[in-house]
Amino acid sequence: MATAPSVSYSMTVRLEVPAGGTAVSQLTTAVESSGGSVTGLDVTASGHERLRIDVTIAASSTAHADSIVQQLRGIEGVTLGKVSDRTFLMHLGGKIEMSSKHPIRNRDDLSMVYTPGVARVCTQIAENPEDARRLTIKRNSVAVVTDGSAVLGLGNIGPKAALPVMEGKAALFKTFAGIDAWPICLDTQDTDTIVEVVKAVAPGFAGINLEDISAPRCFEIEARLREALDIPVFHDDQHGTAIVVLASLHNALRVVGKNIEDVRVVMSGAGAAGTAILKLLLAAGVKHAVVADIHGVVHGGREDLVDAAPDSPLSWIARNTNPEGVTGTLKDAVAGSDVFIGVSAPDVLAGEDVATMADGAIVFALANPDPEIDPAEARRTAAVVATGRSDFPNQINNVLVFPGVFRGLLDAQSRTVNTEMMLAAARALADVVLEDELNANYIIPSVFNEKVSGAVAGAVRKAVRAAGESATQPATEAAGTSGE
Amino acid sequence: MATAPSVSYSMTVRLEVPAGGTAVSQLTTAVESSGGSVTGLDVTASGHERLRIDVTIAASSTAHADSIVQQLRGIEGVTLGKVSDRTFLMHLGGKIEMSSKHPIRNRDDLSMVYTPGVARVCTQIAENPEDARRLTIKRNSVAVVTDGSAVLGLGNIGPKAALPVMEGKAALFKTFAGIDAWPICLDTQDTDTIVEVVKAVAPGFAGINLEDISAPRCFEIEARLREALDIPVFHDDQHGTAIVVLASLHNALRVVGKNIEDVRVVMSGAGAAGTAILKLLLAAGVKHAVVADIHGVVHGGREDLVDAAPDSPLSWIARNTNPEGVTGTLKDAVAGSDVFIGVSAPDVLAGEDVATMADGAIVFALANPDPEIDPAEARRTAAVVATGRSDFPNQINNVLVFPGVFRGLLDAQSRTVNTEMMLAAARALADVVLEDELNANYIIPSVFNEKVSGAVAGAVRKAVRAAGESATQPATEAAGTSGE
Repeated sequence: MATAPSVSYSMTVRLEVPAGGTAVSQLTTAVESSGGSVTGLDVTASGHERLRIDVTIAASSTAHADSIVQQLRGIEGVTLGKVSDRTFLMHLGGKIEMSSKHPIRNRDDLSMVYTPGVARVCTQIAENPEDARRLTIKRNSVAVVTDGSAVLGLGNIGPKAALPVMEGKAALFKTFAGIDAWPICLDTQDTDTIVEVVKAVAPGFAGINLEDISAPRCFEIEARLREALDIPVFHDDQHGTAIVVLASLHNALRVVGKNIEDVRVVMSGAGAAGTAILKLLLAAGVKHAVVADIHGVVHGGREDLVDAAPDSPLSWIARNTNPEGVTGTLKDAVAGSDVFIGVSAPDVLAGEDVATMADGAIVFALANPDPEIDPAEARRTAAVVATGRSDFPNQINNVLVFPGVFRGLLDAQSRTVNTEMMLAAARALADVVLEDELNANYIIPSVFNEKVSGAVAGAVRKAVRAAGESATQPATEAAGTSGE
Repeated sequence: MATAPSVSYSMTVRLEVPAGGTAVSQLTTAVESSGGSVTGLDVTASGHERLRIDVTIAASSTAHADSIVQQLRGIEGVTLGKVSDRTFLMHLGGKIEMSSKHPIRNRDDLSMVYTPGVARVCTQIAENPEDARRLTIKRNSVAVVTDGSAVLGLGNIGPKAALPVMEGKAALFKTFAGIDAWPICLDTQDTDTIVEVVKAVAPGFAGINLEDISAPRCFEIEARLREALDIPVFHDDQHGTAIVVLASLHNALRVVGKNIEDVRVVMSGAGAAGTAILKLLLAAGVKHAVVADIHGVVHGGREDLVDAAPDSPLSWIARNTNPEGVTGTLKDAVAGSDVFIGVSAPDVLAGEDVATMADGAIVFALANPDPEIDPAEARRTAAVVATGRSDFPNQINNVLVFPGVFRGLLDAQSRTVNTEMMLAAARALADVVLEDELNANYIIPSVFNEKVSGAVAGAVRKAVRAAGESATQPATEAAGTSGE
C-alpha cells in the first residue's frame, strides 16, 4: 500500500536558479519524477541573472522529503537555500493561545475585570457555588488530560511529547464546537496520582476529556473519576471511538439492509477502544459478538481466562460475548460473519479471509496508519469498507464526535455522560447522512460537514434532559453509568 | 474615609420617562443628590410620548447602588426597567477564552495541526524534550494556581469562588506581557496534595504563579515546588508584593534623600506578604528592620517565641531583624523610625503615631481596602505616603510586577526565580520613574505606563543570564534560592 504525497509531510524549499534556461521547469520535473508533488511555486526575488524561488512540495514521508531535496540539489545551476517543514513551522510556539475577552485599557476596565470589582463576583459564587457556571469560564471549559502513555501510534512518549496532540485537540474543540479546552499533561503515570490530580483541578472545568492513556489503567482512572466528580468524564479513545464506530455501523447496515440485532460481529482487539466499542454495540442491540485478541477468540474456556480475575476486562468480555462458544483464531471467527471491526494491528486479515464472510460484509479496519487489511483488497468482496485513514472513503474519525458531545454536555450542564447520551450521539451522527446521500462509499459525513457538531450536540442535550435530575442535579446517584 | 463612587459598582438602569417635562433632568439630579455619579446617558428609543433611556451610574457600594435605584423609582412619571450590574455583565461566561492560532478549514490544515502531521512533532520532542519549549505552548504558558484559601480580603472562599480573580490575573498576564496563563483552581487545601498536583501539571507550563494561598502553608508549598520543578515558581502575594514595595521604597528614599542602609524600617504584619517584603528588603541592604505582629514587636525574648521551633517563620524574623532589641508595641517601635510598611489590618496607627516618626517619614499603608492609617491623616506629617488603593496617589499594585517578571523569566527560559532577579525587577521598576518626574506623589508608575512591563522583563532577562547555567540548564543545583 504506497502512501500518497501528503501536506503533513509538506516543505517549502528556497532555491536560487539561473533566470534563463530550463532550470525552473526542471524543478517541477525533478520533484514529480521523485514521486512528490509541487503544491506551490513562488518567485520571491528576481534579477537579470538569478531568480529566488520558494517551492512548496508534498512528500509521503520524511525520508521521501529528504530524497526530493537531494534531487533538487543535483540540478545544474541550482543553489539550495533554507528548507522549511510546514508542519513544524505551524507548531512553533504552540498552536493555541489564551486571550482576554475584554480589553483592559484603563482604570475603569481594571476595576471591573480585577480588583476591587471582582470581589463582588467572588462573593456571589462563594454564597452560591452553582453560579460558577454562569459567572466564570467553568461553563465552557474542558480539560484535555493525558499522561502521555499511549499517544497516537507512538506509544509511551511522555507528557511533553504528547502536548502537540493535546493542543491540536484543544484547537479542534474550539473550531468545531466553540469550547475552551486547555491541555493538562501529567508528569505521572500512577493511577492513584492521576485520579487525585484530576479531582483537584476539576473546579475550573465543566468537563474532563481523558486522552491517550494506556489500558488497562484508563478504565480504572475513568471509573474512579466518574464516581468522584460532578462533571462529565469522557475518555475519547474509548467513547469517542465507540460512538463514531456505532454511527458508521448504523449506516453501513442501512446500505446492506441488515438489522443490528441479527448480524454476527467479529472484533479484533480488546484494548481500550475495542472494549468501549463492544460495550456500546451491545447497548445498541448487537446480540452476536465475538472478540479476538492476540491469543485468538476470547471465550471462558481459554487457558489464560480460566483463572483470570472475574473483574478483569477480558473476563467481562468472555461473559458478555460469544454466546455460541466460538473458539480458535480470528480468521476462524471471521468466516461467515457479517461485520468485522478491527482496532488492533496491521495486516491481521488477508483478502481471502474477507471473502469467507457472509454476503454484504462490512469491514471497519481502523488500525492506524496501517489497517488490519488493505482496504482496496477488502473491497473486492466486502460491501462496505471503512478505515481510520483520510486517503480512503469512509474515514472513521473521532473528530466527528467529541466536539459535539461536549457541546451538548456543557450546554445542558450535565454532571455525567452515560450510555444513553452516547447512543443518541451515534444515532444523530449517522442521521447527518441523508437517505439519498447514503451509499457504500459514504456512510459517514466529512469532519468538515457543518451539520455534524450541532446535530450531535442537540441529541446529547436531549438525552441529558431525558436523564433528568440524575444528570443535572447535585447527587451522588448521578455518577456516570456508561460502560458498565 | 468616605468611598468615592466607582465604576466597580457601576450599573446601567433602563428607564422610561415622559418625552416632555423635566423628568430627564430630574434623573441626573436624583443620582447626584444620592451621592452617585452619572457616567453615561443614552436615549435608546424615542417616541412622541415616552423616551427609553439607559443611564449608567457609578455608586460606592452595593447598598448605595440600591438606594440610588430607589431614588429613581420615586420620580414622577418614571418607569423602571432592567437594572444591569456592569461588573457582573462583564463576568458572564468568564473573562478569558482559548483560541486556535491557525484556522482549521480543510483536510490540509487538519493533517498538519492534528494527525497525521502532529506525530512527527511529538517524535521530535520525545527524542529531545527541550524542544517542547520551541514547538509547544509550554514556551509561553503560565499556570495560575490557587486553592482559594486566602482570596483578596475575602478569606477562604474556595476554588470556584476564586476563579474570577484567577481569570482576571490571566487577562492581565496577556494584556501586559503577552503571556498565555490558565487558571488551575484546586479542590484541596492539603499541602502535600497541592505540591503533588502542581508537580504533575507542570510539563505543559513554563512557569507557576501561586496565588491567594494562605500562610503558613504557602511557604512550604512554594519551597517544595521550587526544589522539585525545573520551571520558576512565584507566589505573587509574597514576591510580587515584595518587588513592588522595594521599588516604591527605592524612589521614596530618593525623594527624602536617605540611604536604604541607614533607615530604620518598621513593618506591621508577619504574614506571607510581610515576610517576603522583609526578606527582599534585607537582601536590598536594609540594616535596621523591626517587625510587629498582632502580639507586638517580634524579638527572641517574646513569650510566644522562646519555645518556638527555630525554623518557624517568626523565629526566622526574630533572628534576622531587630538588632537593637526593641520590645513593646507597634507604636513604640514606630516612634523615631524612618519607614513604616503595613501589610496587616485597618487603623493600627493614628496621625499622632506618624507624627512621632523621624523627619522625612515614609508610610506605606497597604492593607486593602482599608489601610493601616488614613493616608490623608498620615500625609500631615509624613513626607511620602503610599497605599494599595487606586483612589490615592502612589498605588502599590502587583500588576506592575508579575507580568514583566514572568515575561523576562519565560524569554530567558529560566528554570528558577531567585533573589537577584527580584532585586533587578524592583530596581528596573523604580527606574521607570525618571528623575524629573519623581516627587512625593509620584514614586511609582501607573499600571498603564507602557514602559513598565518591558523594563521589568529586560532586567529579569539580564539577571537570568547573569545567573548563567544554574538558572537555565537542567541541574538540581539550579533550584531557586530566593526567600532563603
